[in-house]
Amino acid sequence: MSSQYGHLFRIATFGESHGGGVGVVIDGCPPLVELSEAVIQRDLDRRRPGQSEIVTQRAEEDRCEILSGVFEGKTTGTPIAILVRNKDARPEAYAEMQTAYRPSHADFTYDAKYGIRNWQGGGRASARETIGRVAAAAVAKQVLKQLAPKLEIVAFVKSIHELVAEVDGATVTQEQVESNIVRCPDEKSVEPMIELIKTMRSHGDSVGGTVECVIRGVPAGLGEPVFDKLEAELAKAMMSLPATKGFEIGSGFAGTRLTGSQHNDPFEIRGGEIRTTSNRSGGVQGGISNGEPIFFRVAFKPTATIAQKQQTVTNAGEPTELAARGRHDPCVLPRAVPMVEAMAALVLCDHALRQRAQCGKI
Amino acid sequence: MSSQYGHLFRIATFGESHGGGVGVVIDGCPPLVELSEAVIQRDLDRRRPGQSEIVTQRAEEDRCEILSGVFEGKTTGTPIAILVRNKDARPEAYAEMQTAYRPSHADFTYDAKYGIRNWQGGGRASARETIGRVAAAAVAKQVLKQLAPKLEIVAFVKSIHELVAEVDGATVTQEQVESNIVRCPDEKSVEPMIELIKTMRSHGDSVGGTVECVIRGVPAGLGEPVFDKLEAELAKAMMSLPATKGFEIGSGFAGTRLTGSQHNDPFEIRGGEIRTTSNRSGGVQGGISNGEPIFFRVAFKPTATIAQKQQTVTNAGEPTELAARGRHDPCVLPRAVPMVEAMAALVLCDHALRQRAQCGKI
Amino acid sequence: MSSQYGHLFRIATFGESHGGGVGVVIDGCPPLVELSEAVIQRDLDRRRPGQSEIVTQRAEEDRCEILSGVFEGKTTGTPIAILVRNKDARPEAYAEMQTAYRPSHADFTYDAKYGIRNWQGGGRASARETIGRVAAAAVAKQVLKQLAPKLEIVAFVKSIHELVAEVDGATVTQEQVESNIVRCPDEKSVEPMIELIKTMRSHGDSVGGTVECVIRGVPAGLGEPVFDKLEAELAKAMMSLPATKGFEIGSGFAGTRLTGSQHNDPFEIRGGEIRTTSNRSGGVQGGISNGEPIFFRVAFKPTATIAQKQQTVTNAGEPTELAARGRHDPCVLPRAVPMVEAMAALVLCDHALRQRAQCGKI
Amino acid sequence: MSSQYGHLFRIATFGESHGGGVGVVIDGCPPLVELSEAVIQRDLDRRRPGQSEIVTQRAEEDRCEILSGVFEGKTTGTPIAILVRNKDARPEAYAEMQTAYRPSHADFTYDAKYGIRNWQGGGRASARETIGRVAAAAVAKQVLKQLAPKLEIVAFVKSIHELVAEVDGATVTQEQVESNIVRCPDEKSVEPMIELIKTMRSHGDSVGGTVECVIRGVPAGLGEPVFDKLEAELAKAMMSLPATKGFEIGSGFAGTRLTGSQHNDPFEIRGGEIRTTSNRSGGVQGGISNGEPIFFRVAFKPTATIAQKQQTVTNAGEPTELAARGRHDPCVLPRAVPMVEAMAALVLCDHALRQRAQCGKI
Repeated sequence: MSSQYGHLFRIATFGESHGGGVGVVIDGCPPLVELSEAVIQRDLDRRRPGQSEIVTQRAEEDRCEILSGVFEGKTTGTPIAILVRNKDARPEAYAEMQTAYRPSHADFTYDAKYGIRNWQGGGRASARETIGRVAAAAVAKQVLKQLAPKLEIVAFVKSIHELVAEVDGATVTQEQVESNIVRCPDEKSVEPMIELIKTMRSHGDSVGGTVECVIRGVPAGLGEPVFDKLEAELAKAMMSLPATKGFEIGSGFAGTRLTGSQHNDPFEIRGGEIRTTSNRSGGVQGGISNGEPIFFRVAFKPTATIAQKQQTVTNAGEPTELAARGRHDPCVLPRAVPMVEAMAALVLCDHALRQRAQCGKI
Repeated sequence: MSSQYGHLFRIATFGESHGGGVGVVIDGCPPLVELSEAVIQRDLDRRRPGQSEIVTQRAEEDRCEILSGVFEGKTTGTPIAILVRNKDARPEAYAEMQTAYRPSHADFTYDAKYGIRNWQGGGRASARETIGRVAAAAVAKQVLKQLAPKLEIVAFVKSIHELVAEVDGATVTQEQVESNIVRCPDEKSVEPMIELIKTMRSHGDSVGGTVECVIRGVPAGLGEPVFDKLEAELAKAMMSLPATKGFEIGSGFAGTRLTGSQHNDPFEIRGGEIRTTSNRSGGVQGGISNGEPIFFRVAFKPTATIAQKQQTVTNAGEPTELAARGRHDPCVLPRAVPMVEAMAALVLCDHALRQRAQCGKI
Repeated sequence: MSSQYGHLFRIATFGESHGGGVGVVIDGCPPLVELSEAVIQRDLDRRRPGQSEIVTQRAEEDRCEILSGVFEGKTTGTPIAILVRNKDARPEAYAEMQTAYRPSHADFTYDAKYGIRNWQGGGRASARETIGRVAAAAVAKQVLKQLAPKLEIVAFVKSIHELVAEVDGATVTQEQVESNIVRCPDEKSVEPMIELIKTMRSHGDSVGGTVECVIRGVPAGLGEPVFDKLEAELAKAMMSLPATKGFEIGSGFAGTRLTGSQHNDPFEIRGGEIRTTSNRSGGVQGGISNGEPIFFRVAFKPTATIAQKQQTVTNAGEPTELAARGRHDPCVLPRAVPMVEAMAALVLCDHALRQRAQCGKI
Repeated sequence: MSSQYGHLFRIATFGESHGGGVGVVIDGCPPLVELSEAVIQRDLDRRRPGQSEIVTQRAEEDRCEILSGVFEGKTTGTPIAILVRNKDARPEAYAEMQTAYRPSHADFTYDAKYGIRNWQGGGRASARETIGRVAAAAVAKQVLKQLAPKLEIVAFVKSIHELVAEVDGATVTQEQVESNIVRCPDEKSVEPMIELIKTMRSHGDSVGGTVECVIRGVPAGLGEPVFDKLEAELAKAMMSLPATKGFEIGSGFAGTRLTGSQHNDPFEIRGGEIRTTSNRSGGVQGGISNGEPIFFRVAFKPTATIAQKQQTVTNAGEPTELAARGRHDPCVLPRAVPMVEAMAALVLCDHALRQRAQCGKI
């Protein structure tokens, strides 16, 4: 279903930009996992608006409340409900959108599908929807700490517009990523990226880019053949994030320009284990992890909400012009990093449990 | 589950490269849809080995048998089971693979996951697995003919290695695609592509490329918010195909190098309908179709099976060398075209039924 | 998953007896359905404690808040989250249960399964869990009003202990059911039943009984063959309610003492429609509704919580005695009536949408 | 979906009474489980027609073929497809049913739902459908042998019409059940039951009865709270079998006539373990197994197909008379025993895997 994800670590998110709040219910979480609101808040803070000068200035604290499923600091195995209230909602800023369709937003398609839409701030199509995902993923990470203690997920800004960072996936750390507001671990790229974002905002324009994610310490054997291949699940998870336009794993699109003899990853024995000498597979072969680092890239389009005037139509079919007045991000990339990381955690946690179910191990 | 797909048009595929056969069980198919073995066979013939000189020469007729769910030429609403027997199985050609892991294949990961694997011809990881998908999709297309008669899906080879075709997605037809054995509708590209594939095979090597797919006549309103966005479902469906490394929709990765004002698709009234003047969204906004053509590209890596000798290890951890002797495709792209088309049909059929369920229309 | 129900009208409930609250998230609800907190509250009030002298005196108002999914009085098609805060929680009343297992409760089995349990007031195993179900069902009923306007669900107390009511399923109304605190539409039975419950409570004991439910105006064609037969789904739904021990539909267990010629329901034409002259099938044949009234009975055991001293053991394996001090129902039947009705509504709503999806009609 | 069952041990059945065959695809089966056609055949033989003089004389061998998912005698973790061909199909015997609706069969409801139906021998509503279930359950039992070696499932005929057997659930064995053609382990009841069935058949009539099932050696902790309670899953599983009208577990309907102090199961320490002194709970508390034997009863109505003339109507709305000429069972109970056992195995296998997934143990 549209707002539910996962086969065993199953989440149901809810909530709109404006209204009572947003959140998630998690079903199937293992019991006896340490969990507190502080653990969840840490990741929500990395996602929330207003955290730096280059993101939207909507003043949301995004304080989470655990409503159920945790007792004396540990999960009980029953549903974990997490609620974040909306605070700084300004529906009046969206009055114009009641009738005019914002270009490259979901206003028109929601109307076409449902015949009704909460036009205040994007409704369900608002990026506030991702709060439920990030909260659930904070729990998933706690589960993964138990199931696969060596596993670590590091996502970072790989490119913004034409600016491409140089990052070594084998060594990059979350500390490096979090050391600057653009979440790019390549020191040389940080200032140019920040400048570019500021310039775009001053022009009433926006930019896109790519997030790369590397997952190290993945046990071999996660994932499934056929439809639920690990790369397929990751692709879906990433392409379900707002503003995404592409996904590639390992050699990706560039790999189509190699020959088989150039592309294949030979096996060898290294450190007493079966390893590959290269990793164009991106850590996954036949849908199943092979123990090498998993790495993939996600394309995010330039933010659709821009201050420049744009041509559009109303729901009555009248041509009109529209210029955004709501608060918005001139570039979603810095805040996309924790979202990508969150979705990766949800995929891996679900597959770790599936592996334990079917094969009795992780 | 790994070999099941779809929420309402739900398929369960089965079968390995060698053994009793491959096939699919479809549950949830609407009743009273015209269906015959001939309809399914047409698409299986486009997928099957031995259909031309540039694909694998395994001699499989891939004749399908409908075991259930069809009565007097129409679906009954109960499960449709379709079986294709394996004929030209040569397990002896794979004897070496019993112990040696083929580079960039699923041999090692299946062993790591399951502790056992049918090593004859790739087992479940063989591309024969896609027979069940293509057969199910032939049924899905019959359903779509009823639910969305204007909808048409055309997939084609967009590039092989460095050779990139020029194709107009607005007009390309399946007839053009099927007019040559490489399934590229750009006449200028056909011969160079065929030559390249033959050259690669003669070198004991292989090549990859991209398939593009355009879906025209999609009603606005298909898809869902949040996790089951239409692009997310398409991404998963495509990345679940063997040998895929990337997916992009609309502007894709290149779109990250545009600004918002360049990238947004303005709305206008055209022909009395709300349309967009450009289509960088690729026909989907906020996870829901907007009535414009949906188009996306899928990256296929060069075939892992090559005749050149490669370094690898055995399941006992001994270094060894391996050169493929089984029959295989030097380039999967021509046969990937009907697979991409099939997965697109499965996604759209499922979402058409989901839309009818929730919103009472399509 | 354990706290999720439904294939298309999909609900995820959460919450424990003590803690932040209980509630539900509904995914897949059709758009444009009229909905307000008042509509939901009406059913919650029929379920809530303290509503009469013969039920538990826990003072809970059970006020619901719609957090999302409703805009200007109508559903938007996106997730509907409903929250009810816990108010009159008294964890201290349950201190003893921290270690001692209450007989015929879930204390021991939760510990055996999860290794942890929220021992305050029953935790997730408390009947407060059913708030989420009743709230979701209030929404389901609104959907059914649109999809099947003639459909009406009437549940009532059929028996308590040895007292059996005489009720005509063809004519019984919800008004009759709600006219007395025991929710039995047979006037003659009301006073004896109330007296029996009071007597049992004064003895520190409890009683069980049966709820019967009749669903009239069901369109023919709801339900499915094989696993998801309508009677199978109803059986699961009812047997998922706390304290249930049995389910029977139509002729039920008594029907096993008839011969086929006595039991079969002959068809006839009545009022221009195909009808049956008897209804031992209980409105369902081969898993699919036949247009006759659906009726079934559910057995509820006597409340496990009693004030009399009982033999038990502690989680450390020590024998001990336990006498309930928490507030509880001496008989769950009066409050079980809206729960049975709720589960019936959830089953029918889901199947109405499934029918619309597959067959394009309801 | 209607012909799919299970969350982790997921089966998809297919096939009709007449046509290519019936069978099942199992997804999610653990790898390395011993499996052969002989193991499956053993259970199919207990279900098949023609096995004795008191069941239908349709001459079906029901030979199964494993099409996939097994390699060198062990499951591979990939889909297991099992096919049984139809042999003794006699569509001509059903010509009359093409238009006339058999009373208390699914003919009318299938038409009402789907607008089409395979009228040959009951189509999908034929009891042949259960072949897929029994085959899948034979695999499930092999899995359970590994996961819960002490678990044993014994189902038996508890009553036929007014004849009630006396059976001790603590000691009854499958050998006792299989020692006679009526599958009743109470020696005194066997002859009267057989006589009754023969008498009914000679009258062109039929009888119903109850099957009881006891499951011993169940580890504590299987099952789930709320919707997927073990008793709810068992109820659904049993009520999905053809001809079932009721389900009760433990004290069942009779338990509603006890008081709480009579009904509760006190805990004690026995053999160093936490046990209950009585077992009115039927082995399940709060939806989760408590380690005591699980036992339940299922009501089967008298066979709807009888040789006596019955009043009915045609699909054109004309009154007519109908007398069965197809081969059929005068009493389904003897063949229902392996079906009940099969469904119990499917429920337990799925929950054993769910338990391993969430709690890391069984």
